[in-house]
Amino acid sequence: MEPSLSRTSVRRLPAKQVQDRAALDAVLDAGKVAHVAVLDDAAQPYVVPVAYARAGDTVLFHGSTASRLFRSLAAGASTCLTVTLLDGLVVARSVFESSMHYRSAMVLGVATPVTGAARREALERITEHLMPGRWAEARQPSPKELAATQVLSLPLDEWSVKVSDGPPDDAADDLDLPVWAGVVPLRPQPYDAAVPAPDLRHDLDVPDYVRAWASQ
Amino acid sequence: MEPSLSRTSVRRLPAKQVQDRAALDAVLDAGKVAHVAVLDDAAQPYVVPVAYARAGDTVLFHGSTASRLFRSLAAGASTCLTVTLLDGLVVARSVFESSMHYRSAMVLGVATPVTGAARREALERITEHLMPGRWAEARQPSPKELAATQVLSLPLDEWSVKVSDGPPDDAADDLDLPVWAGVVPLRPQPYDAAVPAPDLRHDLDVPDYVRAWASQ
Repeated sequence: MEPSLSRTSVRRLPAKQVQDRAALDAVLDAGKVAHVAVLDDAAQPYVVPVAYARAGDTVLFHGSTASRLFRSLAAGASTCLTVTLLDGLVVARSVFESSMHYRSAMVLGVATPVTGAARREALERITEHLMPGRWAEARQPSPKELAATQVLSLPLDEWSVKVSDGPPDDAADDLDLPVWAGVVPLRPQPYDAAVPAPDLRHDLDVPDYVRAWASQ
Repeated sequence: MEPSLSRTSVRRLPAKQVQDRAALDAVLDAGKVAHVAVLDDAAQPYVVPVAYARAGDTVLFHGSTASRLFRSLAAGASTCLTVTLLDGLVVARSVFESSMHYRSAMVLGVATPVTGAARREALERITEHLMPGRWAEARQPSPKELAATQVLSLPLDEWSVKVSDGPPDDAADDLDLPVWAGVVPLRPQPYDAAVPAPDLRHDLDVPDYVRAWASQ
């Protein structure tokens, strides 16, 4: 499962490229939203945010079967799915070396529709990725709902991971400048207190598994 | 500056489409990372994270002049730039209605290279978007650094904004289920305390404008 170096190698900053499959899994498992490329008939690209989850050696994502863009993907169009986590700002002495700490995973390939019983399992993976513990309690999808949901599976065959971390890398000539430099880290987005639906008909506490999301 | 409805209208969930230019600006101004589509010679799409800033009726983003993908954009390839902000999890009674609160801005078009004196101004906009106050203190880009940085400008002519908010929208048949439902909001990523560079040669406090990022 080595990434193809022809299409996914990082030519600009090879030091940032990570060849480790565990690093790919870590980025995909930590993200909540992926951005997927889709082309229309005129080769105009679109970048669409999607909910997703990694499942073994694939990444699963879903959309509506009524979406023309998802139909194009299901028909075998080449795509790219990217997950980016922003970890901080790198405040270098020069504007040129100033940048961001980030982890970004890019997966290239052709997605295939998930069909039959596997579609329900795939939806469970996506739901549990975003909302651990929810699948068992929520009302399961009906056959009609399952039919209205296009689930696509993209194999983790051709991918790259870039990780930018560490202190500013200022040029030697800049180190004597009387200018503060450093890193300002960014933490993951924190959860706020759950807000019950206004039309709740039962006296139900926020479930423990929902409260636990805040401590992820 | 109305968006072209042929390519950017939201067909799936028209209620979520926002036609307001102020909403577009608000999403672009609140985001830190955009995802940009680029095609290679074989029409394989890539989705690349970039630093960006809105400047009036354009969005500016940059990359290396050595990047083949950025060269393709500079040569006039159609692109799409998307900024997505995740605002919360919508925990509906059914799996099918469970979703996310988000704001997503998509801009379609052809980017043009920013040249001459405008390139420095564009880099200032991008730097100040991410790191307000920094431009005036950091060492300005040299002519060589300016030449190595490709800055692209994408006009805000053809765009769409989708906003998903509000409580879960469960089907009437599901409202009696004894299942908790609600929204779990997500706050923006908080800043951690600044970490000075290990090779700082002067006794400098963290600048006030850097401390102020935490209160944005």
